[in-house]
Amino acid sequence: MPTRLATAVANANIAFIKYWGNRDEKLRLPANSSLSMTLSGLETETTVEFSEGRAADEVIIGGQAQTGQARERVVAHLDTIRARAGIVWRARVESSNNFPVGAGIASSASAFAALSVAGAAAAGLDLTEPELSALARLGSGSAARSIPGGFVEWQAGSDDAPETSFAWSIAPPEHWDLVDVIAVVSQKHKAVGSTGGHALAGTSPLQAARVATAAERLQRCREALLTRDFPRFIEVVEADSNLMHAVMMTSTPPLFYWEPITLAIIKSVRRWRSEGLEVGYTIDAGPNVHCVCRSVSAAEVERRLRENLDVKTILVARPGGPARLRG
Amino acid sequence: MPTRLATAVANANIAFIKYWGNRDEKLRLPANSSLSMTLSGLETETTVEFSEGRAADEVIIGGQAQTGQARERVVAHLDTIRARAGIVWRARVESSNNFPVGAGIASSASAFAALSVAGAAAAGLDLTEPELSALARLGSGSAARSIPGGFVEWQAGSDDAPETSFAWSIAPPEHWDLVDVIAVVSQKHKAVGSTGGHALAGTSPLQAARVATAAERLQRCREALLTRDFPRFIEVVEADSNLMHAVMMTSTPPLFYWEPITLAIIKSVRRWRSEGLEVGYTIDAGPNVHCVCRSVSAAEVERRLRENLDVKTILVARPGGPARLRG
Repeated sequence: MPTRLATAVANANIAFIKYWGNRDEKLRLPANSSLSMTLSGLETETTVEFSEGRAADEVIIGGQAQTGQARERVVAHLDTIRARAGIVWRARVESSNNFPVGAGIASSASAFAALSVAGAAAAGLDLTEPELSALARLGSGSAARSIPGGFVEWQAGSDDAPETSFAWSIAPPEHWDLVDVIAVVSQKHKAVGSTGGHALAGTSPLQAARVATAAERLQRCREALLTRDFPRFIEVVEADSNLMHAVMMTSTPPLFYWEPITLAIIKSVRRWRSEGLEVGYTIDAGPNVHCVCRSVSAAEVERRLRENLDVKTILVARPGGPARLRG
Repeated sequence: MPTRLATAVANANIAFIKYWGNRDEKLRLPANSSLSMTLSGLETETTVEFSEGRAADEVIIGGQAQTGQARERVVAHLDTIRARAGIVWRARVESSNNFPVGAGIASSASAFAALSVAGAAAAGLDLTEPELSALARLGSGSAARSIPGGFVEWQAGSDDAPETSFAWSIAPPEHWDLVDVIAVVSQKHKAVGSTGGHALAGTSPLQAARVATAAERLQRCREALLTRDFPRFIEVVEADSNLMHAVMMTSTPPLFYWEPITLAIIKSVRRWRSEGLEVGYTIDAGPNVHCVCRSVSAAEVERRLRENLDVKTILVARPGGPARLRG
């Protein structure tokens, strides 16, 4: 049967100014603009194959045929792509990550970025990077930030024009030699995934205050990043992470993504910095701790995580490139 | 030499709706009203002896003569009492606690409550309970709540009339058989004491939102307490504790009073409750966890803390009586 096929690769990303909560759940229009680094080497590779005679979409992730909610979310995204391309063919989607899924490393970000790039190409859509970013956003908010490379800003955009909510690169990967030393303290699936969590953000009495002050933090973070001012940079990065977790812990029901070891690492990182090691932390919707430092300190940070805190699994990522077709 | 002497005993208290931040630091007028339980058996006993010929105030706590800030704070409180009584005699103050100091059990609350009751009596002042509570507040905010017995509300009061910021009993100790099973996970002194912490509250972008919603929580807590509705009660108690720690973690600099074991207990308590054991938690400005339950569950809560979480030191307190002169 006639088929149209494309394969794409996208990287995970780590947010320095966090995305938490939507002003429009369906369109995933975020409550605030965010800022991230695309992570080299933490990849999702996805192949989309549309076939004329196929009866239903087939979704395979990490070699496992998906059913239920996981499949539905991919099918919904394929429907969006098909509607834009004016096609009706069903697809076979095969996707794999090279990093643990569902433990605070944004696997849905790289997954929906790769799905968007591969799906659009296979469907014959010729989209710009902003268009691909806005498309990826519909599948998973933070996927908007896994389309561009390097250091990335995702603007909240306008309510009247959802297509203005997309991400772009504010500096290329080589702008700054930051390293994300990720202490993987749990590979378990989260009890409440990010999509469910975003929907709870508004139940915290603190979310409005976090959102109201996010633009100021983003500006401070952008300036510190563009001028490579590590002390100023890491101060606002940690503060923003703390604010997101404060909102999470005070939603109804409360979300405690941290584990005891998470807090132990937070406290150690702050002590190490006070003792002169240039490192800080940021934490996504999971227990893993992203220790952010410059290249010169990465080996020492990794050593201390292993030796002082007995962290067994550590991933090391540097600024990565944009999502791309594999040809 | 002529002397005038009095001895008083006051209990610690645990806040169910928290006090964090002042609208007037000097007068310790709190940012919001709070609600607490006076804790039987966690006592400070204080003797104040004014003597005509004494050259300087002498302050002995736990057998140790105090110098520096700890002494100055007591002297300042004696000055307030002397000014009201119109006396100039210096005093010898001897005070002792029967519980660990500076680890999140409000030792300054019972200490300044006992000091106020003993000091006022020794100085010949005849004060009402509200007057004693407002006096104690000037020494340590939460000491206002260690003057009355049972279940206690401290109203924020009026800016124009600081004497209206005092606490009173809303229900006697026998109203409800609540038990505070305190997991003492650290007896170390806090890096940042409560007085320093209160001064930082306003640096958190979340404090205003916490304060703005505190009156609603206090009302819900009071109603649940007066109707002995444990599920409704503990939900708002935990939420209010989470909100205070959210503010602490997002102040500049951030205050992390929790230790890893604190978070482990939080998560266990929530799981135990979901499995049917009626217990919840609240945490003051320290790492210890106050597990709150009814009398029927106290032994089981204590057993699980010891066996499942390896907590070595546990204090058990029930609703206690008011501060009183010892006679």
